[in-house]
Amino acid sequence: MISKNMQVQVQNSSVIRAMFEEGKRLAGIHGVENVFDFSLGNPNVEPPEDVKKAILEIINDDSSMGVHAYMNNSGYEDVRAAIAKSINDKFSTTFTQNNIIMTVGAAGGLNVIFKTLLNPRDEVITFAPFFGEYRSYVKNYEGELVVVSPNTIDFQPNLAEFKEKITPKTKVVIVNSPNNPTGVIYSEETIIKLSEILRDKQKEFGTDIYLVSDEPYRELAYDHAEVPYLSKYYANTIIGYSFSKSLSLPGERIGYLLISDQAADYENIISAANIANRILGFVNAPSLFQRVVAKCLDAKVDLEVYNRNRELLYNGLLSYGYQCIKPEGAFYMFVKSPIENDAEFCSLANKKNILIVPGRAFGCPGYVRIAYCVAYKTIEKALPGFKALIEDVKSEGIHSQFLKA
Amino acid sequence: MISKNMQVQVQNSSVIRAMFEEGKRLAGIHGVENVFDFSLGNPNVEPPEDVKKAILEIINDDSSMGVHAYMNNSGYEDVRAAIAKSINDKFSTTFTQNNIIMTVGAAGGLNVIFKTLLNPRDEVITFAPFFGEYRSYVKNYEGELVVVSPNTIDFQPNLAEFKEKITPKTKVVIVNSPNNPTGVIYSEETIIKLSEILRDKQKEFGTDIYLVSDEPYRELAYDHAEVPYLSKYYANTIIGYSFSKSLSLPGERIGYLLISDQAADYENIISAANIANRILGFVNAPSLFQRVVAKCLDAKVDLEVYNRNRELLYNGLLSYGYQCIKPEGAFYMFVKSPIENDAEFCSLANKKNILIVPGRAFGCPGYVRIAYCVAYKTIEKALPGFKALIEDVKSEGIHSQFLKA
Repeated sequence: MISKNMQVQVQNSSVIRAMFEEGKRLAGIHGVENVFDFSLGNPNVEPPEDVKKAILEIINDDSSMGVHAYMNNSGYEDVRAAIAKSINDKFSTTFTQNNIIMTVGAAGGLNVIFKTLLNPRDEVITFAPFFGEYRSYVKNYEGELVVVSPNTIDFQPNLAEFKEKITPKTKVVIVNSPNNPTGVIYSEETIIKLSEILRDKQKEFGTDIYLVSDEPYRELAYDHAEVPYLSKYYANTIIGYSFSKSLSLPGERIGYLLISDQAADYENIISAANIANRILGFVNAPSLFQRVVAKCLDAKVDLEVYNRNRELLYNGLLSYGYQCIKPEGAFYMFVKSPIENDAEFCSLANKKNILIVPGRAFGCPGYVRIAYCVAYKTIEKALPGFKALIEDVKSEGIHSQFLKA
Repeated sequence: MISKNMQVQVQNSSVIRAMFEEGKRLAGIHGVENVFDFSLGNPNVEPPEDVKKAILEIINDDSSMGVHAYMNNSGYEDVRAAIAKSINDKFSTTFTQNNIIMTVGAAGGLNVIFKTLLNPRDEVITFAPFFGEYRSYVKNYEGELVVVSPNTIDFQPNLAEFKEKITPKTKVVIVNSPNNPTGVIYSEETIIKLSEILRDKQKEFGTDIYLVSDEPYRELAYDHAEVPYLSKYYANTIIGYSFSKSLSLPGERIGYLLISDQAADYENIISAANIANRILGFVNAPSLFQRVVAKCLDAKVDLEVYNRNRELLYNGLLSYGYQCIKPEGAFYMFVKSPIENDAEFCSLANKKNILIVPGRAFGCPGYVRIAYCVAYKTIEKALPGFKALIEDVKSEGIHSQFLKA
């Protein structure tokens, strides 16, 4: 008696979350310390001390009456102004509070912007590999997700195919950099070319195509790598930001949409997104945490923890013969499956108590995603398992692409 | 370039919220102390002290690592268990954590359950006057809202008309008691009859009809009035609860869905609602406040503050000649407009710096809603304006139903 759409969803229930449950099951049998769960992007680094400090300051300040009350659906004006200023300082932009709508995380923000923009059958283009939830977010508003196939050389977007897939029905292009699942940062060269293609196609079709940048991993870039700020390259830009990873607050559901005032129909987008935030049932981003993040705009989790994990895992896997691009950001590694069938490889890994996610969940079969936002010790203890896995596969010789090569 | 649906929404943008902005404008001109804003259900009573205590306990407890992390999309298991126990203690029910899904307020919960249940063109029945947002929530999932016209004698649901409006397409009936905007509590007699009608129609059509009870005002019942717990009267019951009013936390977006295990297709509803919570972009209810409400299940805002407001406003208005049912719960009064056109009456009130909402926003023209969750002083200072308003209308004599009567 549930809806037909949800019957399908229940059947195909998220591979990632299923893994999460499998992890709990294995932990029950083998003990949590002997299960190596790399399946979920749940940050293991504690929030910076500033978060606790901010909460205590706000809660203990008697003048903060009303901190739990309703406000404008777009969020507190002073919070939005503080965020705009922080962006301007970092990227030499000129945004104001009027460009910002506080949202229930980036997932809430993306739903708000898709509700705002999409008519049924409008097309949303994304580049494989991509965060699998985009499928559902687009489908919620009866849009069609159009997937550009992966460029497995360096995992930058495949721009030649992209150009061919833009049609008069293309309403949105969504990008995610640093990328989940590859950890790749889309280069400035990529962004410039992608913007040029979009401008050309807008002219050709007489349409507006919005570039939505999903940026929960912006602050997680290693070796001081730069993540281009897309509004500087393309007018029709909307940014979906989240504090889930930069401040390790994923459970608190706090982020924002930034809508460039250079974007076509800007005023209506702002009005509609404000209403969409309300009628989708978010109403507003959680109020205490709006105030908390405004006090923590210069804070950031200790990136070195993730960086050490990255080095340990990357060097380990490479030494065993795995193939992988070294991630420049986020906390994921996207590794070529040593056998053709990525789902089968994940099942083999399960038998060694290692939980990883098949690349097909991200539109890129033949690879697996390893989320290394875990304890250093977990990686140390799991590495022998990874070593044994590839050795097993090689010795059996079946399906092995290494032996074929 | 925004979607066609949202173009309509922007045009018809919520009357209530527009009032909110109008209030800010008038306050800018006349000073905030001279504008009497009765337009919004934003609680003016501070949260109970237990809320602050709970936040400090959780934040200062070093063992509460991970309090800001992701958890199961349905929420923390121990929080859900504590809520189930609290309900069982109060209502002699036998629920467990498996009946509960934590949600982003009741608005989030209603969106989750409509997403879970509704196929396009499924019908959702509600009773006028009703919370206007139901229109949008139902439309989000392409359902059709069917409105039963108001019974203006005592504002209990019009059950004769209800019976006629149930069809094989009826999937959900949504009720809201204590009611926004009338403050009326649907009586046990009403609930028993309504349940009988539903059971008969289910049998007649061979369908399942879910009764969704929207209960943000459950704890706000005056004079120890009882609010029937609907799962005890009807098997296919789903309850949408919010802590927004019971603990004065509307900005924090915290509530839950309770799905009775007596409901048809219970297992699938739970699975689908869990997924809907995720894919709609809520992901999970805000994590810190899940823990906070679990520590405050016996706490409640000081109802006497609202009660004093209720008495002052009700007695004042009656003495001036207004007609109104005395509210039994919530913090709204639904007053008969002294002129036929409720929107015109609200405009007249605006000129006296009084902000109230026309009944047509709740599917019941000819009435106005006064939200009395304001300072006692605000009511005291506004009463002369209400008196002058009805006197003006009577002396002018135009459209006055009092003179016609």
